[in-house]
Amino acid sequence: MTEITKQGLIYTGKAKAMYETNDPEVLWVEYLDQATALNGKRKVAIAQKGLLNNRIASLIFQDLAKHGIANHFITQQSAYVQLVRRVTMIPLETVVRNAASGSFERKFGVDHLRLFKEPVMEFFYKSDQLDDPFINDSQIVALNVASADTLAEMRRQAQLVNHRLQEIFGAMQVQLVDFKIEFGVTTDGKILLADEISPDSCRLVDQTTHESLDKDVFRKSSGDLTQVYTEVLKRLAAVEEEKPCI
Amino acid sequence: MTEITKQGLIYTGKAKAMYETNDPEVLWVEYLDQATALNGKRKVAIAQKGLLNNRIASLIFQDLAKHGIANHFITQQSAYVQLVRRVTMIPLETVVRNAASGSFERKFGVDHLRLFKEPVMEFFYKSDQLDDPFINDSQIVALNVASADTLAEMRRQAQLVNHRLQEIFGAMQVQLVDFKIEFGVTTDGKILLADEISPDSCRLVDQTTHESLDKDVFRKSSGDLTQVYTEVLKRLAAVEEEKPCI
Ligand SMILES: Nc1ncnc2c1ncn2[C@@H]1O[C@H](COP(=O)(O)OP(=O)(O)O)[C@@H](O)[C@H]1O
Ligand SMILES: Nc1ncnc2c1ncn2[C@@H]1O[C@H](COP(=O)(O)OP(=O)(O)O)[C@@H](O)[C@H]1O
Ligand SMILES: [Mg+2]
Ligand SMILES: [Mg+2]
Repeated sequence: MTEITKQGLIYTGKAKAMYETNDPEVLWVEYLDQATALNGKRKVAIAQKGLLNNRIASLIFQDLAKHGIANHFITQQSAYVQLVRRVTMIPLETVVRNAASGSFERKFGVDHLRLFKEPVMEFFYKSDQLDDPFINDSQIVALNVASADTLAEMRRQAQLVNHRLQEIFGAMQVQLVDFKIEFGVTTDGKILLADEISPDSCRLVDQTTHESLDKDVFRKSSGDLTQVYTEVLKRLAAVEEEKPCI
Repeated sequence: MTEITKQGLIYTGKAKAMYETNDPEVLWVEYLDQATALNGKRKVAIAQKGLLNNRIASLIFQDLAKHGIANHFITQQSAYVQLVRRVTMIPLETVVRNAASGSFERKFGVDHLRLFKEPVMEFFYKSDQLDDPFINDSQIVALNVASADTLAEMRRQAQLVNHRLQEIFGAMQVQLVDFKIEFGVTTDGKILLADEISPDSCRLVDQTTHESLDKDVFRKSSGDLTQVYTEVLKRLAAVEEEKPCI
């Protein structure tokens, strides 16, 4: 592989800036020191957030790959930068819930953190204009967002991701309440896990103290996000880095 | 069968009053001269609505049964009354859409009456307290509202109902845009089509004039509901009653 160099900006999102590189198959992802809530309406600078999420996501993506769950991660390039495989994003957020919280809790009036026998899976249609509506399979197919086969494959991978994430976070004394992932399609037509997995996209609760270890700290202004994400990285690194690097 | 007599009121809903009878397996359903909108917040008396819907629903349920789609209908007892098989209702509204309208159109910003290649199917959780939220399969299972097998059977029957209703309304020069049905479980564990099928629960459009022939006339205060339902019954009777009664 020739050395990868950063080229034009493609997109600045709520948490990351994506750049092209000299390789059309590779993106340069900068994790930003920025947090947003209410679909971007509230935006705040947070010291070191980008660095922390980049490191956390890098460790998780590497772990998943080692456990047979292919994903877009190529390498951590620097403190704030990841190189990833470029894909055509499927405009769906796939949410997996192990316990009730957030919109599920509000919508169905069930007890906070009630455990589900089987994980709940939900799709949300990524559209700023439509405000990311909750969507079901037959609507997704009717709107040509994805085929039934693609949804089945996303579900299959999401189950595997959930299973492995629960092992990782369990070893960190953290309960994985729910998380959101995104998938893309590679140039050779494979459905590939992409975007990020971090405390921005997971709902995490300390198993002993029950305190939030995720972006809810920011959403609810209930603590210092940098401190909380630093704690998550510390525990994750202890779990991941004790393993021999092969 | 001994003669069925009306007994105590069980429930008065938005469009019907349900009474017990001397037979524990049979309910006495009175269709009311009443229309509601906004989940019951707006309620208005409408002359003859109950009579019209009772007759329309009776003709449709009979037709479906003749076409192999079992349902709760036993007999039309009188102008306003139907006898039906009592079931334990599954608290889900099953919505089938052949074209975009109503909440689908608003939520996804698609063109009014855009046709779908495959019918869209949606479930709504019947709960006045929760305001009948849109719900997906995995949420339904997690909340113990219905099993995956029950949902599959509801989908199968809903497809058959859609197919036959399109034939019936097609013969009436009416486009079936979408409709809502409800299912219950019989004492011997079968999933049975119940509740009603009428212009209250179907979105109907005249194929030539494109005018609404359903409850949208009331929702949008755009015309005389009695007149419109009378027209629907006239066309339905012409289609149904020309067939020899076997
Ligand atoms: N491998 C990839 N290839 C192409 N696009 C990607 C890839 N991974 C993530 N993306 C997209 O890049 C953007 C990441 O930036 P982010 O700040 O998370 O955006 P958003 O505001 O949409 O959440 C998202 O739109 C995401 O879908
Ligand atoms: N065969 C049946 N057995 C028992 N309950 C039924 C049957 N058919 C319909 N129901 C229920 O009876 C009620 C019908 O009244 P309706 O006015 O439509 O109520 P709603 O206000 O819930 O729409 C509904 O709650 C419906 O679920
Ligand atoms: Mg994002
Ligand atoms: Mg009803």
